[in-house]
Amino acid sequence: MTVLGLGAMGSALAGALLAAGRPVTVWNRTPGRADALVAAGVTEAGSVAEAVGASPLVVACLWDHRSVHETLDPVADALAGRTVVNLTNGTPGQGRELGAWAHEHGFALLDGGIMAVPPMIGTPAAFVLYSGPEEAFDVHRAALDAFGESRFVGTDHGMAALYDIALLSAMYGSIMGELHAFAMVRSAGVPAVEFAPLLQRWTTAVGGFHERTAELVDARDYTRDVVSNLGMQAAAYHNLIDAAHEQGVSPELLAPLHALMLRRTAEGHGHEDTVGLIELLLTRR
Amino acid sequence: MTVLGLGAMGSALAGALLAAGRPVTVWNRTPGRADALVAAGVTEAGSVAEAVGASPLVVACLWDHRSVHETLDPVADALAGRTVVNLTNGTPGQGRELGAWAHEHGFALLDGGIMAVPPMIGTPAAFVLYSGPEEAFDVHRAALDAFGESRFVGTDHGMAALYDIALLSAMYGSIMGELHAFAMVRSAGVPAVEFAPLLQRWTTAVGGFHERTAELVDARDYTRDVVSNLGMQAAAYHNLIDAAHEQGVSPELLAPLHALMLRRTAEGHGHEDTVGLIELLLTRR
Repeated sequence: MTVLGLGAMGSALAGALLAAGRPVTVWNRTPGRADALVAAGVTEAGSVAEAVGASPLVVACLWDHRSVHETLDPVADALAGRTVVNLTNGTPGQGRELGAWAHEHGFALLDGGIMAVPPMIGTPAAFVLYSGPEEAFDVHRAALDAFGESRFVGTDHGMAALYDIALLSAMYGSIMGELHAFAMVRSAGVPAVEFAPLLQRWTTAVGGFHERTAELVDARDYTRDVVSNLGMQAAAYHNLIDAAHEQGVSPELLAPLHALMLRRTAEGHGHEDTVGLIELLLTRR
Repeated sequence: MTVLGLGAMGSALAGALLAAGRPVTVWNRTPGRADALVAAGVTEAGSVAEAVGASPLVVACLWDHRSVHETLDPVADALAGRTVVNLTNGTPGQGRELGAWAHEHGFALLDGGIMAVPPMIGTPAAFVLYSGPEEAFDVHRAALDAFGESRFVGTDHGMAALYDIALLSAMYGSIMGELHAFAMVRSAGVPAVEFAPLLQRWTTAVGGFHERTAELVDARDYTRDVVSNLGMQAAAYHNLIDAAHEQGVSPELLAPLHALMLRRTAEGHGHEDTVGLIELLLTRR
């Protein structure tokens, strides 16, 4: 296996392949990053061409989409017949562009999304999403399993990035809520560690309803079994914003949801489930 | 026990007290809401004064802060020596105002925050936060336990609302993330139910770190054991916003966090933990 890019993540990927007993060749634009890996048995290539030539499976874990092209364009012909697994962060559109480019050059591209931070690579907590040609995934799956659980999410090259970004978006939403919650608590002089166990209990209790949300989203029907409707929540949400102002906490992270709630209520959906707010996010309808 | 207000929540509270074997008197501004409760053994009072006079413990679960005053002001003298538990939604400032007003009129006020929807009342899943005079809480705790787990969070009357709103804020952050995630998935034509199990796994995996966040917040030191620093996350966050635009999804719910990330990075904190963003939310520093 070849790994291109030895940032924290690329190094973790190379280390995981090595730990799984695979022969590993690495390359990094800036030399000197491979020393520890080389000491452990990895081969450092002197050029991208040499690195690519060493293995049928080439894993790219670079800075961004542009650096993927800067690295691979000069060796495109040498990639023919190989499989490139792109684990560089990117958008669905970038994944699709790379898939089309790979097709032109006669190599298989799997675009991937790593759902882990580097220390988690190679542990059961990590999972990696892949999209692209399924036969390439099947051939290389055993090797890729060294990184964590491998999940194939579709033949459309954009799907891995789409799933990746959707999951990260959910996480960042939670982070916004957590930051605001702790800001409120600190504004009142309460130690955050006193509040944290209650927050943990609460987020665990209210965090388990994605399946119900999904059913409403798929049905595009937000009127079923509504326990606390949007209109009631929009009214109560005023207190959240007012309380932030009272306490000297900026409500900027929470304010956009309030705006959506008020718009959707004004459009006559106050009796429906809050999940219906999703309709306002989908601008191409 | 007396319960003032028979909305969905007030009715659930009265029902829970009755189920716990307590004598219950209720009052609602609009008559006719008490019929089912009366059939089950509850007494309906003809006026607020009569309702208040019936019990040493008066639970108010009304529409908003203003309606609490509209209901209680005319009977303030009759409240002397009793305990009022206000479970109406409100802000910390409103809780403090009510506490001071109760003090003037010689009655004990416990301000509360119900962490449950009405169907959860009386089940182990519900918990209720209380703040105010601790001796009043101790005296009435056994009765209040009928609603769910009772948690005393401080003698400052504003604390129950503060904790309540902090917890709700965390939940709404998660809802923002969930809405955006499902919008991304639907924009790609993927059934939400296919994505939901992965989202559930992911949110469970990344949702368990409030204690670590709390330690950083209390220490006001965001430089310890940083795995993925703010600068890296701010750079990667561009992909989230770009991907939303690509897919025709409005990034409005996620955009404010990006703005905070960029500001904090520009202020020289890019090498620190993302938790440091809290400093930008605390406007009275």
